[in-house]
Amino acid sequence: MSEKKRRAGAAASGAASSSKKPRASAAASYAESLRSKLRPDASILATLRSLASASASASSSKSKAAEKSLADHDPSADPTSSYIVVADQDTTSVTSRINRLVLDTARSILSGRGFSFAVPSRTASNQVYLPDLDRIVLLRRESARPFANVATARKATVTARVLSLVHAVLRRGIHVTKRDLFYTDVKLFGDQAQSDAVLDDVSCMLGCTRSSLHVVASEKGVVVGRLVFADDGDRIDCTRMGVGGKAIPPNIDRVSGIESDALFILLVEKDAAFMRLAEDRFYNRFPCIILTAKGQPDVATRLFLRRLKVELKLPVLALVDSDPYGLKILSVYMCGSKNMSYDSANLTTPDIKWLGVRPSDLDKYRVPEQCRLPMTDHDIKVGKELLEEDFVKQNEGWVKELEMLLRTKQKAEIQALSSFGFQYLTEVYLPLKLQQQDWI
Amino acid sequence: MSEKKRRAGAAASGAASSSKKPRASAAASYAESLRSKLRPDASILATLRSLASASASASSSKSKAAEKSLADHDPSADPTSSYIVVADQDTTSVTSRINRLVLDTARSILSGRGFSFAVPSRTASNQVYLPDLDRIVLLRRESARPFANVATARKATVTARVLSLVHAVLRRGIHVTKRDLFYTDVKLFGDQAQSDAVLDDVSCMLGCTRSSLHVVASEKGVVVGRLVFADDGDRIDCTRMGVGGKAIPPNIDRVSGIESDALFILLVEKDAAFMRLAEDRFYNRFPCIILTAKGQPDVATRLFLRRLKVELKLPVLALVDSDPYGLKILSVYMCGSKNMSYDSANLTTPDIKWLGVRPSDLDKYRVPEQCRLPMTDHDIKVGKELLEEDFVKQNEGWVKELEMLLRTKQKAEIQALSSFGFQYLTEVYLPLKLQQQDWI
Repeated sequence: MSEKKRRAGAAASGAASSSKKPRASAAASYAESLRSKLRPDASILATLRSLASASASASSSKSKAAEKSLADHDPSADPTSSYIVVADQDTTSVTSRINRLVLDTARSILSGRGFSFAVPSRTASNQVYLPDLDRIVLLRRESARPFANVATARKATVTARVLSLVHAVLRRGIHVTKRDLFYTDVKLFGDQAQSDAVLDDVSCMLGCTRSSLHVVASEKGVVVGRLVFADDGDRIDCTRMGVGGKAIPPNIDRVSGIESDALFILLVEKDAAFMRLAEDRFYNRFPCIILTAKGQPDVATRLFLRRLKVELKLPVLALVDSDPYGLKILSVYMCGSKNMSYDSANLTTPDIKWLGVRPSDLDKYRVPEQCRLPMTDHDIKVGKELLEEDFVKQNEGWVKELEMLLRTKQKAEIQALSSFGFQYLTEVYLPLKLQQQDWI
Repeated sequence: MSEKKRRAGAAASGAASSSKKPRASAAASYAESLRSKLRPDASILATLRSLASASASASSSKSKAAEKSLADHDPSADPTSSYIVVADQDTTSVTSRINRLVLDTARSILSGRGFSFAVPSRTASNQVYLPDLDRIVLLRRESARPFANVATARKATVTARVLSLVHAVLRRGIHVTKRDLFYTDVKLFGDQAQSDAVLDDVSCMLGCTRSSLHVVASEKGVVVGRLVFADDGDRIDCTRMGVGGKAIPPNIDRVSGIESDALFILLVEKDAAFMRLAEDRFYNRFPCIILTAKGQPDVATRLFLRRLKVELKLPVLALVDSDPYGLKILSVYMCGSKNMSYDSANLTTPDIKWLGVRPSDLDKYRVPEQCRLPMTDHDIKVGKELLEEDFVKQNEGWVKELEMLLRTKQKAEIQALSSFGFQYLTEVYLPLKLQQQDWI
């Protein structure tokens, strides 16, 4: 047994610490001993297969429930109509909504009543977390934006202009950025914050997501693994994207034909871990789709993840740093961020499992003391705030982990696992996590 | 004629400003009138073809000159040996260099003299711009780092450790990040700045680029267009990468089999412009390779551009904002940044043409006043500093443009062209620029 350990240790000695200090080498040899706990891949794969099929059936029953609850949101019949539900719409639908709005406006003007837009409020006090739907939504509270009023004349004009620009973009079948939109009429908009804000208003007024308006954010996410899809008609095979991966397209409505034989989606916080997984072709050993937004998730990556989850019905496992920000990133993927709350239904991916690196992993995997970092006061503040969030509170396991984090006041990055060897992440840590179904 | 103009204007009215203000609409109709100046694409393509072949022959004569000048840098024979030339090396070569260094060290220890590393200085005062080579290099000034000295014992240990880690990475045939490297021995390195600095030392000591050491930076660049290459053996066709494009791989040594029928490389500062070009499939109208680092160029994108330039011998045209930072970004691609000077030969792409948006374009294309932004004091300071840089001084056209920028104190983004319509960039501005060979 000790012979076996020594051999395993020697095999990885190239990358593992060769320090003579007893504690570090004890941790390293313990880390290596975990390798012997790994069952054959076939056995781990069987576990994953049953997980994937469970997720598919759960998703389909859940999505029926979600459909039901959205259908219940019939504005005329139900008290839940007090929520604004913004949804993805195709070009024809958005165009006809704009046409209808403009026709109403024209009729109002012709009848001598001037015109006014009914704009939903997007303030923080108007945002609410719905436990049933597990997302943040907007309360239906609208304010009038009449043209014939000194206080709102300018904003009403800007709103009309943005509506006409969006209409033009849709008619041309192209996509533009918020910055492009601003530059089409700098004199009127004044600064970009104004056109951006009105664009969000328009999105709520029309009940369409911003991406339905063909106004896109810049992309920073990448994807690799067992996934085939079409980006603007080009067939992309993500097992053949080398180490660099495929850049996630900024315009989700040009993505189609999603196919995959993956058993799960691995959501990675940082690009360093992504690179390790891509270079080691982790997805060939354990069929999966690996994606990262390289830090704080951008809209394009969130939309893409949601599409994958909805269409493929795969479990999503998250690999983030063991610190409050890792959890915060999970919360953005799962519940949306406050300033995009009205769009949350289309941006959020519920039911993401926290695979690691979790605070309890630090001791479990004996991450050396020197690879752990003390939490700053700000870290602790963020952690305490998270403890108050509904989405954390409803998951007992998460509360425990977060409390442990705040008690130990120690954080660690995914990269801390490199202290056991550069490929410890892909060769031992993740396979063992998968084998033990160690996610919460 | 005026009928023609009106028709052209009407065609683009969807996106162009419909403001009734005389000045804005005059600018818009002038902008549209430029469309009629466009010759048929075949004629523009003929121009580009001759440019590309001229560039190929110039490159081959230049590269011979460059080879010659590098060959002249024979350390024993030539005074130019006072420069440190760091070059890309394959794994075998780097490994044998490390072996040689370690054998020397061992011999030194066995002969009772202890050991010491000769580390080249990387301070600013040791960096010099070579007009002949058109890049920043490092003077050959080494300092001893003996182990048997209280002041340097720790750093000598760190150096030995980094050498051994790099050796392990190379032996495994994998790539790691600087962060990974740091985490393999946190106790010794203390903080990442130390292992990073020593890694740069090691790179200079071995005369290899950092990417040859298989320590890579994170990627943020994307590429699209008439380019086929292999990323870690996977064949990537960049005409079939949709709108999102292909993420540029972090490890350039896994890139091979570069092929292209492009006539030029279009280097774009921002991802918004990249997205416009990708969505409009600009490369199908004018065969080109389009790439962007999304702002400040990262090492991976610079390496990739250089590889493309060296292998394909295509002219490189740059599309950047009309402000001092646009020019600064060009300078990083062309001459390298100061803190990577020793590596400049492998990171820099000389002879990039400044296509636009240039300060003189603002009046030439009648970019409306409200789309121009006043320069801040800091902008002006950066602009004045650039005027003192050798790489600017040697290009008379650049000096004139920069002087104009500082005189008018007006800057503008690429997106400012959206004021004439969302697709003005791809439909009028760039084709006209190419037709008129309007670059400097």
